[in-house]
Amino acid sequence: MSAARLRLGLLGCGTVGGGVVHLIDRERERIRERHGVELTIEKILVRDLAKPRPGVDRRLLTTRATDVLDASCDVIVETVGGVHCAGAYVRRAIANGRHVVTANKALLADCGRDLFAAAVRRGVTIGFEASVCGGIPVIRAIRDGLAADTIDCVRGILNGTSNYVLTRIEADRLSFAAALALAQERGFAEADPSLDIDGEDAAQKLRILAGLAFDEPVVSSSIAGIRGIRHEDVIRAREHGRVIRQVASAHRVTGGIELRVAPVQLTAHDPLAHIRDEFNGVVIQSRAAGEITLIGRGAGAGPTAAAVVSDVIMMRSDKMNGID
Amino acid sequence: MSAARLRLGLLGCGTVGGGVVHLIDRERERIRERHGVELTIEKILVRDLAKPRPGVDRRLLTTRATDVLDASCDVIVETVGGVHCAGAYVRRAIANGRHVVTANKALLADCGRDLFAAAVRRGVTIGFEASVCGGIPVIRAIRDGLAADTIDCVRGILNGTSNYVLTRIEADRLSFAAALALAQERGFAEADPSLDIDGEDAAQKLRILAGLAFDEPVVSSSIAGIRGIRHEDVIRAREHGRVIRQVASAHRVTGGIELRVAPVQLTAHDPLAHIRDEFNGVVIQSRAAGEITLIGRGAGAGPTAAAVVSDVIMMRSDKMNGID
Repeated sequence: MSAARLRLGLLGCGTVGGGVVHLIDRERERIRERHGVELTIEKILVRDLAKPRPGVDRRLLTTRATDVLDASCDVIVETVGGVHCAGAYVRRAIANGRHVVTANKALLADCGRDLFAAAVRRGVTIGFEASVCGGIPVIRAIRDGLAADTIDCVRGILNGTSNYVLTRIEADRLSFAAALALAQERGFAEADPSLDIDGEDAAQKLRILAGLAFDEPVVSSSIAGIRGIRHEDVIRAREHGRVIRQVASAHRVTGGIELRVAPVQLTAHDPLAHIRDEFNGVVIQSRAAGEITLIGRGAGAGPTAAAVVSDVIMMRSDKMNGID
Repeated sequence: MSAARLRLGLLGCGTVGGGVVHLIDRERERIRERHGVELTIEKILVRDLAKPRPGVDRRLLTTRATDVLDASCDVIVETVGGVHCAGAYVRRAIANGRHVVTANKALLADCGRDLFAAAVRRGVTIGFEASVCGGIPVIRAIRDGLAADTIDCVRGILNGTSNYVLTRIEADRLSFAAALALAQERGFAEADPSLDIDGEDAAQKLRILAGLAFDEPVVSSSIAGIRGIRHEDVIRAREHGRVIRQVASAHRVTGGIELRVAPVQLTAHDPLAHIRDEFNGVVIQSRAAGEITLIGRGAGAGPTAAAVVSDVIMMRSDKMNGID
């Protein structure tokens, strides 16, 4: 099979960006054979040229975003995070006629609608599977797999840090503070865990999923984090055969969609009750297909890079599958 | 949004075919709005014109396959089942330059390779999400969602009948015969349940998943059904905190891939242990993304029709997402 070349520009080379470089290195040959796509990395934006980056070709590095955005690339992969710079980069990439793949949930939750509209006008695509639940193909399940069906409800454990903390309180009888410290020690929580613990991270992902699942506007939204959870509550729930999980849910109410992030008691029959530690899970309730559950790793270099690079490959192969 | 018309020819109007007609009727408006696709059914092949079919326009019915295959259609939806006639129909549809969507696992397990090759030569696509695990988008997860990753193992509960029988023995302490009779009474087992109970149905689906997940040839294959399962074994397993499930698995061995369908004892930590009654589930183990679990309804009119019609819609929208 003759392979079509697909040239990538990378914005960022941290955990996710570095994971993308390594995954492409390892899988290049298989991707060429199986998908007929030859992936090459043209330029990589970094903040610090001097930082050691094992396995990354130093000649590709630059500290100027325009070197990446204006290079001859087919796809720009955005992994810098944040809203301000990342938004400006993605807008410029779209204006330049580049496809974009991003893992940036904050950006999409903040101004996804504008970015998607700009992409449609310019005839380019934004891949964002990695922005929600890392390696779990939940975007594809909702957008493509359930294209024919009406979705009534989406519920999920969308934040691995909170789930790790709750699971450790439950299983190891730790205090909230001790469980959080363990999560930080194991790399499942940031030094400042507020976005995760207070529910904002889950709320951002929920907004993205709700935007895909429903056409109706959001008419109600509430966020409660797990900071107030008491050790005794978790233990008492367990004694009654229940578990406490931070659940993000979106469902239809009069006039539109209600979004809610809150700690919830789940019975053992709930598919979300079996999701432990840093894992994520989503339950989609739709009219014809019924209940579908997806579970997997929601973060980390490997799962996120797998979602990013799969999005890149699909941009190419979409062309070859379509109706003429 | 102006909608592109997509004309469908249906082969078969039984459980799945009828489900497709009803789902399109119910979702037509939403699909037009959201996906820009106007679905119309041009012709429907049936065996018996006189049979009552509520909600189906009798003027579309025909007993001659050529009336459907040679009509002006964009997509042929094959739901007649079996290998011989269905294979001839699908080959003719491809030769006529029609895209094909099928729920026929037996056909794809038998001659999928030839049909896919013919489709590539003719520049058409075969959608087959419905052929494995009904409404669970497992084909998309493996083919698209994990396009960038190397898969090491695929394991699943792929047959809802067997799972229903095993779960009822376990939960209601029924004998094998009584559990099977209950499955038949509830519509989860055919009058002749051999294909399900003896493992062949699961083996067909496993062959399709393995063909997608791996490039290597199958070097070893074994099938054991659940007919020999004794009530006491299931109860004893439960007393030790384990469950018995019919597990289909495909993994790498020296020289290629090993396929195995057999009743297996699972601990409570196994994601497949929580899949009950007629539900299906698949666990995909890949190098970068780690473990991904998908659970849902593997059969029935609604879930299967949702997968079929989503495949039809995606054929149209692939065109609009690709790189030019």
